[in-house]
Amino acid sequence: MIRKEDLQKFKNIKREHLKFINIDPLQRGGILPPESKKALEMWGDGYSVCDFCMGRLDLIKTPPIYEFVYDILPKFLEIDVVRITNGAREGIFLVMHSICKLGDTIVVDKNAHYTTYVAAERAGVKIKEVPNNGYPEFKINAEDYRKAIEEVKKDTGKLPSLVLLTYPDGNYGNLTDAKKVGKIAHEYKIPFLLNGAYAVGRMPISAKEIDCDFIVGSGHKSMAASGPIGIIGMKKEYEERLLKKSEKFKNKEVELLGCTARGATIITLITSFPHVVERIKKWDEEVEKARWFSGELEKLGLKQLGEKPHNHDLMFFEASKFYEISQKHPRKGYFLYDELKKRGVVGIKPGLTKNFKLSTYGLTKTELKKVVDAFEDILKKF
Amino acid sequence: MIRKEDLQKFKNIKREHLKFINIDPLQRGGILPPESKKALEMWGDGYSVCDFCMGRLDLIKTPPIYEFVYDILPKFLEIDVVRITNGAREGIFLVMHSICKLGDTIVVDKNAHYTTYVAAERAGVKIKEVPNNGYPEFKINAEDYRKAIEEVKKDTGKLPSLVLLTYPDGNYGNLTDAKKVGKIAHEYKIPFLLNGAYAVGRMPISAKEIDCDFIVGSGHKSMAASGPIGIIGMKKEYEERLLKKSEKFKNKEVELLGCTARGATIITLITSFPHVVERIKKWDEEVEKARWFSGELEKLGLKQLGEKPHNHDLMFFEASKFYEISQKHPRKGYFLYDELKKRGVVGIKPGLTKNFKLSTYGLTKTELKKVVDAFEDILKKF
Repeated sequence: MIRKEDLQKFKNIKREHLKFINIDPLQRGGILPPESKKALEMWGDGYSVCDFCMGRLDLIKTPPIYEFVYDILPKFLEIDVVRITNGAREGIFLVMHSICKLGDTIVVDKNAHYTTYVAAERAGVKIKEVPNNGYPEFKINAEDYRKAIEEVKKDTGKLPSLVLLTYPDGNYGNLTDAKKVGKIAHEYKIPFLLNGAYAVGRMPISAKEIDCDFIVGSGHKSMAASGPIGIIGMKKEYEERLLKKSEKFKNKEVELLGCTARGATIITLITSFPHVVERIKKWDEEVEKARWFSGELEKLGLKQLGEKPHNHDLMFFEASKFYEISQKHPRKGYFLYDELKKRGVVGIKPGLTKNFKLSTYGLTKTELKKVVDAFEDILKKF
Repeated sequence: MIRKEDLQKFKNIKREHLKFINIDPLQRGGILPPESKKALEMWGDGYSVCDFCMGRLDLIKTPPIYEFVYDILPKFLEIDVVRITNGAREGIFLVMHSICKLGDTIVVDKNAHYTTYVAAERAGVKIKEVPNNGYPEFKINAEDYRKAIEEVKKDTGKLPSLVLLTYPDGNYGNLTDAKKVGKIAHEYKIPFLLNGAYAVGRMPISAKEIDCDFIVGSGHKSMAASGPIGIIGMKKEYEERLLKKSEKFKNKEVELLGCTARGATIITLITSFPHVVERIKKWDEEVEKARWFSGELEKLGLKQLGEKPHNHDLMFFEASKFYEISQKHPRKGYFLYDELKKRGVVGIKPGLTKNFKLSTYGLTKTELKKVVDAFEDILKKF
């Protein structure tokens, strides 16, 4: 039995974090510009974009989803065919499910996001990892893909059915030489999937230049859209396999179960897109800010792991000093979260002190200075 | 090359239909109450609900997703275990993908939504249809499930691995005797999936009373939530199969790819829920309104197909008079859409005249009267 009194609190849920500077990498690229907040006033209802359904989400002309999916997004990603998914992970699963056979092995960078592993499990395929070079850089050497491919060939008697690279990875923000990975994959005629969840919408990226066969992006992670939504791009030659039509319902694409992101998510993806295109042009400034921030934290005795100088806003830090403090603090590891919050900063996972990741994306130098000062102030206090 | 000028229009997209009475069945159950529109102001950003990530969407305590998924929703559906999906169709695929083997046959009502067929294709399972009784009722006789099961057994040498009923179906709004279907399925020890996309959130429904093993609902279709989002409920005994954990990432559920509906969709599902619980209590009034409306249209010479007297707000009409007009009208079938719109009514698919579906859900008698008058007025005009 549900009691009415128990439900009242659900009606009005406040988001406390809005008051703070949020350095959580998950959050930085998904913040809506004002025009998309405004769009939600009109398009929040369930199936809002389906007033003029044309039988499939991507074919809707009002609002202009069709133009967005068939003209704008292919130009943006520089790839032949694009579709909307419920997220990057759903795109990854879609590729594996339509390209690989049960029991196949695929080659994946060791820095891959957990969803790559989970999608592979769901699709019934095995993973062969391309190792990173370990502490402190954790870099993936593109050339090692060749070794991994050869090992799969030797061990299983056949080539892997897919090569995947996480670009950048979600832990260290490392940008592997994707073009080289693509070249190696194609030498073996293996299709190449680029997971661009932290790239597409943040930084310039061209599927054509990298020469990947599939690329996935994340709307909520890096394209300033309400979650969950993603995009998938593919070369024409794979369209038929990935977007196979239903036998009974001729215009429905099986892997997309007909339609994906209806409503709030697709509308914000579209209304935010002009903003996204503009912000990408300032990527150099973002990298400069990240490097500056990294330098400032290193001056305080923290150590940035991953590529140096860094090429992305997502960074991983080792902070033994904070760890030492946590050992003697009554709140243990949670002290850092508490102390940062007191200083107007959130986004480091509660409990973490020794290692944590953060992002500087879209924050002004003044805001970043405030974050640096907060870290410094906490170190001084203890 | 994307030109900046081409993108400006995407920044400000208006939803024309908001001004009208919308009788599209897709839209009636997904309209946000004011508290959810308000919630979007704060929670529209990409991963908004993940500020306090606990490793998995359903475990998040702030906002109270955990309480909602583990306490409120199981009580609401009267079933053991519930999870959030990206939609009813994703829930249907999840069940098929984890319960059925490639090449299995499943038994499905002929009135099933197209996504049931597409999900089956994606999962590699075959469909055996339980026929309806044809024009004008298109009713499914629960007892015919037995016949279909026996035929599968005879033809394939084994029992179907799943029984599915669409409750109600999305064409005629017929409510088959679900309890009886469940009883037959369980006589054969076959698990029973109820597709409640047009029931859960609109009308009282109890998985316990119906005795289904799985139930799916749609947030955008019938739970006043921003799309896309759905829920899936299951009996405890199937939890391990449907929600299998990843081998490498022990707390991630493979079929959900870790997390599903983050952000705008889950927050509106929660903030709308008190409203949904209250509106369900008025289901008798909704049925009464639907029957009255059906009667009024029949007085005008339209014919309601499907169950009579009707038990759901979704209704299918045959309107030969409008069809006759369309044959002579310069706008052909589109005339009806035009004429209704002039009179403040939208939601009948542009081009349709002979047969169309609509819903009376959540509309006042005054609004419905306006719709009846519009139909009458158009008939008089031609």
